[in-house]
Amino acid sequence: MGIDPGAANLGFGIVRVEGNHMVALDGGVVETAPELPMEKRLERIHRALAELIAWHEPKAMAIEDIYFGKNVHSAMAVGRASGVAMLAAAQRGISCFSYTPQAIKMAVCGSGGAGKRQVQRMVGTLLGLPEPPSPDHAADALAVAICHGGGAGRREAIAVAETVSPARERLAG
Amino acid sequence: MGIDPGAANLGFGIVRVEGNHMVALDGGVVETAPELPMEKRLERIHRALAELIAWHEPKAMAIEDIYFGKNVHSAMAVGRASGVAMLAAAQRGISCFSYTPQAIKMAVCGSGGAGKRQVQRMVGTLLGLPEPPSPDHAADALAVAICHGGGAGRREAIAVAETVSPARERLAG
Repeated sequence: MGIDPGAANLGFGIVRVEGNHMVALDGGVVETAPELPMEKRLERIHRALAELIAWHEPKAMAIEDIYFGKNVHSAMAVGRASGVAMLAAAQRGISCFSYTPQAIKMAVCGSGGAGKRQVQRMVGTLLGLPEPPSPDHAADALAVAICHGGGAGRREAIAVAETVSPARERLAG
Repeated sequence: MGIDPGAANLGFGIVRVEGNHMVALDGGVVETAPELPMEKRLERIHRALAELIAWHEPKAMAIEDIYFGKNVHSAMAVGRASGVAMLAAAQRGISCFSYTPQAIKMAVCGSGGAGKRQVQRMVGTLLGLPEPPSPDHAADALAVAICHGGGAGRREAIAVAETVSPARERLAG
């Protein structure tokens, strides 16, 4: 499960690793109304993610690292949203992993400097979708999920498979 | 209820407004082990705060605003911890308020440039404690609670009292 954190629009994307390719299971955006106080927005995000986690039972949560190039106020909101996302994972015993925007672009496009549209097109291609996923936050979340599924997640899966073989079947299916 | 947010050490302080002065009801620090992954630290913080909120039933949560003078990594951790604190409040229907370090110093000491020790001494004096509260994070959290109780919180209480008089007794008692 990939997360593109934000308090106004939090993107999520669920990807399943099947052998040497990946398929998209779900993706979308949790939107919260700007007139809501921050604590109510966080509550809504936490509830939505808890439901998605209960439904999909992901093996891991991968989160895009906060991008501090933005202003302080939006960085704070992103930090808070990523905090409640990580909490929702921890409450179901799911481990979290963070990736920088550069690492995600590198994993998806093979270049840390790839543009936003290029990443979205590659996400669509890698997941076998008829067109690039939208909205943007959902595409970004799927990119984080691909980054984890193809890199750290894959290595982890192999390590698990070497010790307990049924785990590999669970991961693949 | 005042919060000095942090993932390693989160300070909390509970203050009751009694007429024109305030008393400390509780204060301390939620510590999390550095070897725990971030999501487990956030889970522990959330659980501890949910218990404190259920026990004390505070009227409001006041949080010290993230201080971005620190490095990016610690700012992220502070943002995440403040997110789960706000969530714990929202889940009990409690509103959250943020105050900058300057506003807190101004409310406690009458000067936005007051030093850390000066703030701690004034917190002890305002709450009628025999000595300045410790540890530091608990003292800082009590300072935020005083800031809210003496400023925004007081104005709010008066506004409520003007419309529904029993609310004033609840706030005072």
